Amino acid sequence: MFGFKKKNIYISRVILPYAVGLVLLICCWLPGISQDLRDSKAASRPSLMPLPAKMELKEGKFRLDEKFQAGSQSGPGSRAFKSVSRFMTRLSGRTGLFFNQDFLAEQKIGPSTTLFCLFNRVGRLIPGEDESYRLEISLDRIELKAPTDIGIVRGLETLLQLLSVDSEGYYFPCTLIEDQPRFTWRGLLIDSCRHFMPLEVIKRNLLAMAAVKMNVLHWHLSEDQGFRVECHTFPRLSEFGSDGNYYSQEQIKEVIQLASDLGIRVMPEFDIPGHSTSWFVGYPEYASAPGPYRIERKFGVFHPVFNPANPAIYHFFDRFFQEMAKLFPDPYIHIGGDEVEPTHWKENPEIQKFMKKKNIDDFHSLQAHFNLEILKILTKYHKKMVGWDEIYQPGLPKDIVIQSWRGTQALIDGAKKGYQGILSNGYYIDLGETAEKHYSNDPIPPDSPLSSDEKKLILGGEATMWAELVSSETVDSRIWPRTAAIAERLWSDQEVRDVPDMYRRLAVINVQLEETGVQHLINQPMMLRRLLSSASYELTDLQNKTAALQSLALISEPVKGYSRHNQGRPYSSLSPLTRFVDACFPESLEARCIRVLVEDYLNSKKPELALKINDWFTSQKIIVPQLKGLTENSSALNLKEIQPLVQDLEEVLLMGESALRLIRDGAKPEDSWLELQQEKLKELKKPKAECQLAIIPAIELMIKHLREEQKRVQGS
Amino acid sequence: MFGFKKKNIYISRVILPYAVGLVLLICCWLPGISQDLRDSKAASRPSLMPLPAKMELKEGKFRLDEKFQAGSQSGPGSRAFKSVSRFMTRLSGRTGLFFNQDFLAEQKIGPSTTLFCLFNRVGRLIPGEDESYRLEISLDRIELKAPTDIGIVRGLETLLQLLSVDSEGYYFPCTLIEDQPRFTWRGLLIDSCRHFMPLEVIKRNLLAMAAVKMNVLHWHLSEDQGFRVECHTFPRLSEFGSDGNYYSQEQIKEVIQLASDLGIRVMPEFDIPGHSTSWFVGYPEYASAPGPYRIERKFGVFHPVFNPANPAIYHFFDRFFQEMAKLFPDPYIHIGGDEVEPTHWKENPEIQKFMKKKNIDDFHSLQAHFNLEILKILTKYHKKMVGWDEIYQPGLPKDIVIQSWRGTQALIDGAKKGYQGILSNGYYIDLGETAEKHYSNDPIPPDSPLSSDEKKLILGGEATMWAELVSSETVDSRIWPRTAAIAERLWSDQEVRDVPDMYRRLAVINVQLEETGVQHLINQPMMLRRLLSSASYELTDLQNKTAALQSLALISEPVKGYSRHNQGRPYSSLSPLTRFVDACFPESLEARCIRVLVEDYLNSKKPELALKINDWFTSQKIIVPQLKGLTENSSALNLKEIQPLVQDLEEVLLMGESALRLIRDGAKPEDSWLELQQEKLKELKKPKAECQLAIIPAIELMIKHLREEQKRVQGS
Repeated sequence: MFGFKKKNIYISRVILPYAVGLVLLICCWLPGISQDLRDSKAASRPSLMPLPAKMELKEGKFRLDEKFQAGSQSGPGSRAFKSVSRFMTRLSGRTGLFFNQDFLAEQKIGPSTTLFCLFNRVGRLIPGEDESYRLEISLDRIELKAPTDIGIVRGLETLLQLLSVDSEGYYFPCTLIEDQPRFTWRGLLIDSCRHFMPLEVIKRNLLAMAAVKMNVLHWHLSEDQGFRVECHTFPRLSEFGSDGNYYSQEQIKEVIQLASDLGIRVMPEFDIPGHSTSWFVGYPEYASAPGPYRIERKFGVFHPVFNPANPAIYHFFDRFFQEMAKLFPDPYIHIGGDEVEPTHWKENPEIQKFMKKKNIDDFHSLQAHFNLEILKILTKYHKKMVGWDEIYQPGLPKDIVIQSWRGTQALIDGAKKGYQGILSNGYYIDLGETAEKHYSNDPIPPDSPLSSDEKKLILGGEATMWAELVSSETVDSRIWPRTAAIAERLWSDQEVRDVPDMYRRLAVINVQLEETGVQHLINQPMMLRRLLSSASYELTDLQNKTAALQSLALISEPVKGYSRHNQGRPYSSLSPLTRFVDACFPESLEARCIRVLVEDYLNSKKPELALKINDWFTSQKIIVPQLKGLTENSSALNLKEIQPLVQDLEEVLLMGESALRLIRDGAKPEDSWLELQQEKLKELKKPKAECQLAIIPAIELMIKHLREEQKRVQGS
Repeated sequence: MFGFKKKNIYISRVILPYAVGLVLLICCWLPGISQDLRDSKAASRPSLMPLPAKMELKEGKFRLDEKFQAGSQSGPGSRAFKSVSRFMTRLSGRTGLFFNQDFLAEQKIGPSTTLFCLFNRVGRLIPGEDESYRLEISLDRIELKAPTDIGIVRGLETLLQLLSVDSEGYYFPCTLIEDQPRFTWRGLLIDSCRHFMPLEVIKRNLLAMAAVKMNVLHWHLSEDQGFRVECHTFPRLSEFGSDGNYYSQEQIKEVIQLASDLGIRVMPEFDIPGHSTSWFVGYPEYASAPGPYRIERKFGVFHPVFNPANPAIYHFFDRFFQEMAKLFPDPYIHIGGDEVEPTHWKENPEIQKFMKKKNIDDFHSLQAHFNLEILKILTKYHKKMVGWDEIYQPGLPKDIVIQSWRGTQALIDGAKKGYQGILSNGYYIDLGETAEKHYSNDPIPPDSPLSSDEKKLILGGEATMWAELVSSETVDSRIWPRTAAIAERLWSDQEVRDVPDMYRRLAVINVQLEETGVQHLINQPMMLRRLLSSASYELTDLQNKTAALQSLALISEPVKGYSRHNQGRPYSSLSPLTRFVDACFPESLEARCIRVLVEDYLNSKKPELALKINDWFTSQKIIVPQLKGLTENSSALNLKEIQPLVQDLEEVLLMGESALRLIRDGAKPEDSWLELQQEKLKELKKPKAECQLAIIPAIELMIKHLREEQKRVQGS
């Protein structure tokens, strides 16, 4: 799942909640705004994400030098040992210190040890496992203690985030942290089907997940658009259903091994009985309609569906899940179960006969029948079932897990009936919403009607990276940094909800995440260079041109929700995802800074803030002529389509300058001028090149302010 | 191989040949220099690299639109089919065109086909295989014909490089190209031992190699610092000798499959009998001295060496090469054979006894004895032997290949005795020399004393990416773009030697290479961001700070040759390679542009050139205060160490401005002033932070010019 068809319910929600008032301004990308605006205490505070359950900052500093030596309890190849090796490599990489310790070979605890990693047992990769740790940093000793080695993995990430620098060099601040997660299921779904994600995409994202203490990779492995796992029993699944783009079992094992090293579960999803076209390319006999079938290239919900009336499919699934249950050690297998299109069931007389014979009244019951058969098979192979909302039916065993894309209410209903659930509604990162929006989405909101026992059934949540409109080049920038905010929501206490502070820390984590290899930041200039270089042989001044285009990209966002599918060009899994819109980040942190700056100014009317806003306008105006030159004279589609966006930028900047001047001068604009601006804003808000200028809301605030001022004056 | 110990012969050569005069200026990275300096005809010429053997540009254009349809002769899974799929994906990515063709599934030639890929047979991966192709682009049809499907792979790369754009959109210029390589062995050595290179590094570099038509991956797989291949017969090799960093046989097969798809051979190197510490960690019994052994972390030439007097080692190698011969299908296996350190041979009485008994007089003969035994084993498994210069001895069969790191003379000597050779001397890309220097290095120079039959024995050459000082983050920028110039040297005709035109095309290819996934450009800002963000929590203005630091990085080069090992900090395979020096490119294309601009000005005295030089000085001077702020106030080692480089930059710019003013005004400086500048230059040329300011030679040219002018005046 999911095609976008049924998800239009989202579209109405994606209009950003711009009205939220924020005072603190921390700016990562913004060129024109300097640091004196920020809370200076915040700036010198370590930027932990997710925030730990309990933290006590003490006096004193543990000084870092080349004698620093880490000790772990178990030998090479173990989770703790590898975790310490990675930690030392990263610490050395950040600080430039040449450590004396041969940390790849030798971690025995001895008299020179300064970092002690101590745990009681090897952690198991199951929900509910203890991931807690206790980190105590004293002047000359760091002690990381945990019940399991997974706690060691988590604690070392915290320690790295504590790395600090002052006039004497690098240090860790003396601290006592006692930490454990609020939810036990903190997942990221990666869809490897709509676009195939090469192995390295999965691996680097596992490392990034570990950096923010996530612990479930939900791997979406079969879809209409591709079957992505080598299956020895049924080799035609990947051979005919993947265009050659699938994971060998060795590769799957590599992923599982790396995930295990990081304390991350790998839960596979095989979406049945719908979303299954690719299965039938090699095995049409299990479908509800005769073949032949082709791999689906379009996106949505399609007719091909397994034939629940054919007893052969259960034999097929028995052998299939036997193999997969062995390949994937996780106790859970996800069977999808969403968005079943009953057309082929309707059209097949044998299925009709079967339904009559079994007294099955409707297609939902038919799917329920199918699910029960699958459940038997999973149980036989000691696996528990997970599925999307649609799989729910009375009588299912209580150890299944329902994943909700529909909403919190479904989770509540499930929990009241005694079913475990995980939340994904509100964590659909493919929709391009803000980190703030995801951050505010709580699996158990403060006003939850559930009893404390029922609450225990809500295991956590999962960010979902559906891959209709992402490629291996762009997927990282769709996942990060926003997923770090979701990770914090799922790890940290419910009371941790300070949005400006979250964004302050997110800016830091955003850059640190690059260390894991995720390409969320580095691919942007590369994609812009490709746009420019494909448009011309003339590579003079490429760096300046790229910088100009990047400054536009940094304040532009792809249109939200599913609306990119309605912009005129029908996307398929073959379409290029190499355009300007693909180079833009889903959430412009720069535009957010501007908006917060404007809010701050409108509240305080401090002249220095007006100056800063004006400086920013000026810095952008300088680039406009260059951007015009790049786009107006180009016949390359990819550049030409940005032209209207550039024109909009020019207009928005002019409007912003005028509004700012009026506000600063306390002047009253004409009604007609205000109306004109509002008309213009309507036009400006229409998508161009499948993008929206993310600074428009800031300008809109100023216009709104002027209007309200005027009303107030007129009213008084 | 190689440790740097014996390579000091290189150090004297690495002083850049700055005296070469070049007139044409093409600038890729340079901000201040606009295009009117370039040869405008050149700019509108397709930038092919390597240049084809024969090319005829015709009138007319093949227009590209969404109906474009590629046809290939063989089905999914074949080399040609996959090659066409990749071609279409890249073409779509560059142009933004949504092609109608389902090119992942359907490539049958039919009435709508516009690109015809036709070949006679499947190419074999052996030296001497036919890689030629004929590419004819007409108004409405493109025909790519080749004797083998490897020719199709090569020709499609050429076609992609021909993609052009004009006021009506994208097109291919009507052309007839008939192309084949000059040399049959065009290799890149990747050392996966000194630093382990994860699989994706190898894969993306294979794609980049294919983009410039290289055809041999020489994979350096064993060393003192690591044994990198899973071996079933002797599992302790990778288990004890790699820190867990090795390739599984499945991964090796993946690499071989991808390489085969790209028409690239994969030749493994197992370096014996020296450079072999890592073998002995698991199998000390085969060494010449008793163990135990540890994986070597330092670099150089070490004592551990196989014991040629122990008959058990030949049984060991028999079983070892039996397994490896099966794993690697290439007809050649490289046995290294370089830099054998005889200390342990000297110290071992059994070896002394053995030598006496066998009438072996010296250690070179002892190695020769060893080699002959190994040769028997390789022959038994139908493999031919390749080794470095040292393996040569009379009586070897004529089908072996000698790879020369020592120099062209060794190749000549070999050829005169009837031995095949490949050149690597002069292609040591780890030494940081210029593309020009490598480009000028011909395996068969015009003045070669070889007969035409002897010349046939020179099979080609290999760029060597030794990995003492590169990590997976930096390796791509050490390989590319300079290796593209070597690729052209090995593919194109001997007469193709126009250095400025090479640089013009290199700038284009440099950016196109990003499409293959190589990270030679994108990792630079990432590494600079890490420096900045590890130095402070304050992430304000990070993008501007990164840009400032990048502008310094773009005109700085790591010290050349092996001298980075003598800068005070002893490197090991555990040392961080995350510093400013690591973020700098080996060759600053920007500094090269400045130097060429200065040369051009000194030759022509055109005032507009002086203006441009001055503009560039100004653009750099603006950044100096910001750079000072970043480095002077930082206590972070990684930033602090750049401080002297920044001071140098300031001084160099001042000197440059003064010199330019004097030259422009035709003024005569005092002798004392000139002497002072020369003294200053001496200081400035000393490495700072293991870097050199690459713009110094341009300034030096101006000072030299002033001195000569003065001499001329004084002389007259």
